[in-house]
Amino acid sequence: MSSIETTVPLPLEQTEAAVRDALSAQGFGVLTEIDVAATLKAKLGVERPPLKILGACNPQFAHQALTVDPSAALMLPCNVVLEPAAGGGTRVQVADPRQLMTDPALAPLAESAAAALTAALDSLGSAT
Amino acid sequence: MSSIETTVPLPLEQTEAAVRDALSAQGFGVLTEIDVAATLKAKLGVERPPLKILGACNPQFAHQALTVDPSAALMLPCNVVLEPAAGGGTRVQVADPRQLMTDPALAPLAESAAAALTAALDSLGSAT
Repeated sequence: MSSIETTVPLPLEQTEAAVRDALSAQGFGVLTEIDVAATLKAKLGVERPPLKILGACNPQFAHQALTVDPSAALMLPCNVVLEPAAGGGTRVQVADPRQLMTDPALAPLAESAAAALTAALDSLGSAT
Repeated sequence: MSSIETTVPLPLEQTEAAVRDALSAQGFGVLTEIDVAATLKAKLGVERPPLKILGACNPQFAHQALTVDPSAALMLPCNVVLEPAAGGGTRVQVADPRQLMTDPALAPLAESAAAALTAALDSLGSAT
């Protein structure tokens, strides 16, 4: 699975706030949130570096995708993964909608979603 | 995206309760929940049939997958989609982990996860 990604020179918590704002500016709401590190610590007692998954969804894109292909629900929302970057700051990776939506009928929509998510990540770079 | 699926002869709400129990018996917790129909109604004013997405995760599988390939976070959790079936009852579709995890190093884990999810759906069939 390839991703659209960037690195933000801020701690994870501040990066998450900036990511949520940047997604919102592109029409994406965050519908779900998983603190993977806390979940694995609670369930398995495993200690691991911070790792958070936000589930981002643009209602217009989602509605259009579901209208074209109801099985698009299997691939919603779009994961935004946050974790400490090797060289400092926070790495932000977004699952590429062009790889998630493999139905050719969804290709134009996947291109639009990828462009909006790329714009969101680009705005992070310029804002920090 | 292909899926593992079954149809349960119960309304969506009762099916969801049965699905949660069946997933739990296979070590999968439900970490996220999206009421797609309610979300699209609230955001776009669109009326559509019920559609719910549960995000299921088995902590053991998730921990192993992240250890083998950190980019597995882009594909977690596994979507369980619930919607009314055309002939009555509720259709349950689970995203196939073998299609989500394309890294060959994750193939054995994807097979195990698919087997556990198939067992969960099979138990629904026999229970209803």
